[in-house]
Amino acid sequence: MYVKGVIYPSIRVPMREISLAPNGVVHVYDSSGPYTDMEASLDISKGLPSIRLDWVKSRGDSEDLSDISSVDVRQRNADPLLDAVRFKNFRKLFRAKPGRNVTQMHYAKKGIITQEMEYIAIRENQLMEKIKDAGLKIQHPGESFGAAIPEKVTPEFVRDEVARGRAIIPSNINHPELEPMIIGRNFLVKINANIGNSAIASSIEEEVEKMIWAILWGGDTVMDLSTGENIHETREWIIRNSPVPIGTVPIYQALEKVGGVAEDLTWEIYRDTLIEQAEQGVDYFTIHAGVLLRYVPLTANRVTGIVSRGGSIHAKWCLAHHKENFTYAHFEEICEIMKAYDVSFSLGDGLRPGSIADANDEAQFAELETLGELTRVAWKHDVQTMIEGPGHVPMHLIKVNMEKQLEVCGEAPFYTLGPLTTDIAPGYDHITSSIGAAMIGWYGCAMLCYVTPKEHLGLPDKDDVKAGIIAYKIAAHAADLAKGHPGAQIRDNALSLARFEFRWQDQFNLSLDPVTAKSFHDETLPQEGAKLAHFCSMCGPHFCSMKITQDVRDYAEKLKMDAREALTAGMEQKSREFRASGAKIYQPVT
Amino acid sequence: MYVKGVIYPSIRVPMREISLAPNGVVHVYDSSGPYTDMEASLDISKGLPSIRLDWVKSRGDSEDLSDISSVDVRQRNADPLLDAVRFKNFRKLFRAKPGRNVTQMHYAKKGIITQEMEYIAIRENQLMEKIKDAGLKIQHPGESFGAAIPEKVTPEFVRDEVARGRAIIPSNINHPELEPMIIGRNFLVKINANIGNSAIASSIEEEVEKMIWAILWGGDTVMDLSTGENIHETREWIIRNSPVPIGTVPIYQALEKVGGVAEDLTWEIYRDTLIEQAEQGVDYFTIHAGVLLRYVPLTANRVTGIVSRGGSIHAKWCLAHHKENFTYAHFEEICEIMKAYDVSFSLGDGLRPGSIADANDEAQFAELETLGELTRVAWKHDVQTMIEGPGHVPMHLIKVNMEKQLEVCGEAPFYTLGPLTTDIAPGYDHITSSIGAAMIGWYGCAMLCYVTPKEHLGLPDKDDVKAGIIAYKIAAHAADLAKGHPGAQIRDNALSLARFEFRWQDQFNLSLDPVTAKSFHDETLPQEGAKLAHFCSMCGPHFCSMKITQDVRDYAEKLKMDAREALTAGMEQKSREFRASGAKIYQPVT
Repeated sequence: MYVKGVIYPSIRVPMREISLAPNGVVHVYDSSGPYTDMEASLDISKGLPSIRLDWVKSRGDSEDLSDISSVDVRQRNADPLLDAVRFKNFRKLFRAKPGRNVTQMHYAKKGIITQEMEYIAIRENQLMEKIKDAGLKIQHPGESFGAAIPEKVTPEFVRDEVARGRAIIPSNINHPELEPMIIGRNFLVKINANIGNSAIASSIEEEVEKMIWAILWGGDTVMDLSTGENIHETREWIIRNSPVPIGTVPIYQALEKVGGVAEDLTWEIYRDTLIEQAEQGVDYFTIHAGVLLRYVPLTANRVTGIVSRGGSIHAKWCLAHHKENFTYAHFEEICEIMKAYDVSFSLGDGLRPGSIADANDEAQFAELETLGELTRVAWKHDVQTMIEGPGHVPMHLIKVNMEKQLEVCGEAPFYTLGPLTTDIAPGYDHITSSIGAAMIGWYGCAMLCYVTPKEHLGLPDKDDVKAGIIAYKIAAHAADLAKGHPGAQIRDNALSLARFEFRWQDQFNLSLDPVTAKSFHDETLPQEGAKLAHFCSMCGPHFCSMKITQDVRDYAEKLKMDAREALTAGMEQKSREFRASGAKIYQPVT
Repeated sequence: MYVKGVIYPSIRVPMREISLAPNGVVHVYDSSGPYTDMEASLDISKGLPSIRLDWVKSRGDSEDLSDISSVDVRQRNADPLLDAVRFKNFRKLFRAKPGRNVTQMHYAKKGIITQEMEYIAIRENQLMEKIKDAGLKIQHPGESFGAAIPEKVTPEFVRDEVARGRAIIPSNINHPELEPMIIGRNFLVKINANIGNSAIASSIEEEVEKMIWAILWGGDTVMDLSTGENIHETREWIIRNSPVPIGTVPIYQALEKVGGVAEDLTWEIYRDTLIEQAEQGVDYFTIHAGVLLRYVPLTANRVTGIVSRGGSIHAKWCLAHHKENFTYAHFEEICEIMKAYDVSFSLGDGLRPGSIADANDEAQFAELETLGELTRVAWKHDVQTMIEGPGHVPMHLIKVNMEKQLEVCGEAPFYTLGPLTTDIAPGYDHITSSIGAAMIGWYGCAMLCYVTPKEHLGLPDKDDVKAGIIAYKIAAHAADLAKGHPGAQIRDNALSLARFEFRWQDQFNLSLDPVTAKSFHDETLPQEGAKLAHFCSMCGPHFCSMKITQDVRDYAEKLKMDAREALTAGMEQKSREFRASGAKIYQPVT
């Protein structure tokens, strides 16, 4: 279902409505876009509807480009050999008019509430004001470690957070298919899913399918980390069909352009790649501008050296040329590109630890300091910025990562990979890392980059993508609960109440993965009737504790008292008798 | 491999030896018993060798019983209809001589170091003194929240911890097949796996197989929660074949004896069940003696009432009879039984929260206070005691559970189920709970009771048991790392170093689940040669960051410098040049 805007009545904000047998409905955040809208007519070869096109045009600060700016892309577009893989539905290209700035941060600082901001305000609240049942609204006070989470998210609050740099709305003006979302520690914790082909395996179709699959299960953004052939064409298919922000690491493609030889990279090739991707509609770029020449020696005695691919490429280039990282040297020029399309920075942690042993070392924190400096430079240009974080970190060293990041980067949103809390479980790193992700999300991390079971071992397939997503939805939601995010507990309450009342279908529908929940239940009790049975499939009729508790309550009711309150009253009477009789710890056997 | 004792040279402590290509060996804790000893000849119908028989006899404080004490069991043993399911290998039965006390706590308080204690001291150290490579020994200082973890575990330390009640060695004198292990917050964090048939599904063979399966993957203890037919016979098969402590919840069997009608339970039936199970060799009993009549009303307004099966049964009985819980009323009598066989208490949390909403409520903490009182009663009898804990708890409310338990229960070991950190992911509760388990393990919890993906939905099969175990091995190890347990990081270091050096086989062997790690790797790069390839299966040859880092180091080496230190030296020189040239943040393009 969709909720209309007030400031902008043309806005239609998607939500998933879950009907409950007795208690009305619960609305939950839904990242899956039109793919779960039964009324949407979709054609992957045409791409999604351009809902933001009018918004962008209405601002009057961007111009319609007549041709693509990247020389490289013009050549590719003229190459008949690429016809078979090319996305063919023509679309308009936008760029800020000379001297204009089209970032959400720029508008926010000027006091403008954009369509994107109102959309997000509605989306974040999940219609929680519609919940009638007081029982569903109960919630523990949280511990948010100094976050400033409001009771209700207003468009003005969104604007203010973006203006202060505490949140970003990744939303390239060339990605009109986007359903806007926000990343910041005063909003719901988000998760990112990585996809991407490589030199070794996978195809365009598979990658588009993986993107749709990832958002179906709850991916809030998707990073396309392709490194193989036809990177450009793959990305076009993905963006045109993606309702969520798409992030990339432009250095990967730049390296492909020089045949994989890091030493041959140049600023010009990299710059052309940034423009190419900005014009395609990439919403955020990971840029490893904090990997400075002088930091590379700090990694020499590490157990696992530099494990970030981008970090390694820059380190090698720096070493080969004895020059400073060109993304650092040209950082202001990069800001100029970013603000002409509203591409957000995701300042990469090229020196993140790749093992427990290397966690929180000098190299990692030195880079973080530089990312803090660069954040201020980006903000000077009103370019939206988030900061990437580790990696592999034992539990007790996680909190200091969050604290340092908040301090050094002026509360710019933190976006971490895990962290993994042990190195000894390859094949299960979605779990080793969901532990760390939940904790850092609680401490204030705004977005959690998922890790799949294939991490360190191979390329994730669809099952791995799903396993990673669900593990991270769990981590993000556990973090929202612990922070005391308003309304976060509604879904837990609704599910637990359904569990207590043996409403199996409601339990399935409220769960993060109804398909798996239902199939697990059906393995033990496949009959349709069992879904109404007043006992759990685990314990059987005699032993089900929930049933016994119900019996206890029924027993109280039989004594002519009302349902819920009955037990209290009846038992309190008995309890008084008990206390009156001496309340001895050891009663004699009678 | 096995390590011999010093005080008791007949002791053979098992460990898993993992050979590494270049670095010698790493020894890790191994719970799998003789099942992974290639030289052991095993026959399930005969049971495991009785390694503790001589130890028990040598103490001279127990007597060989001529017949089983339980009337019920004598009848079952005479029943020809049960021939088909009966374990037939006769064994001796022991009980403390009148007036004697055979608990490890009793010996410990008298200053006696038992065979079990020396065994455990050797086992906990994992031969870490044999590690030569200093690189493998590096470890972050931990944060143990006031635990008293020694640099090296000595038999005297084990004795002292048991004497103070801070650790328990569940080791019934009628379980001679046991390989002793310890549960306490100054030792490695342990995990428990639940198995058990039910009225609805599964058989004896399946349960024995599940037990072996559970310890193969790392279960430190196993609880047999059977509730269906032939509970007695199933348990006999399990104990006779189990090298790990077996725990039970005797009220389940007692309830079967009265046809599932809680009101019909009597102290006599329960008492007979305790003796029956004590003579079979059960190592610890979950007893819900803290579910007091006056606490039941405190659960009346909960979202999910009482979710502990044992708790529900006692609540119903209390309500029906208007009498105090008979396990509470007869607690000292129960202690007398426990100390005659050395069965440890696992004081059950019958009022644990079954949903996020119910976490840390009055009912839960009221029961905990009573468990604290009972701990002191048990200790008066020198009965070993641990305390069970929740349940469903959001992250920010976990720590107070641990703190209260330590305070109220005099540092008796805490043994928690999860806790689950959100209710919304049925089908993935091994993950929702491993997050909470890792955290509470770090805060001081001594043993983590696993949760499988089937929790709330159905009976776990072998895959679920394995998934639960691995998730909990991860949680326990993450906790050991965070506590700074000596030597805990060795395995992480060894694995990460193998990863950096592309020693795939070593990575697989060091991982918690080598089978899955290898099969995931092989999905992408199946060739045997790929296991030696100097790039990851995820990134391909051009992009592997580890390879690039290696290239960076090689490059430095080419400049006529030694390997590891080279980069530092070379880069420092370049870094000096960099600084000398002005160290400007924005270098001009050259």
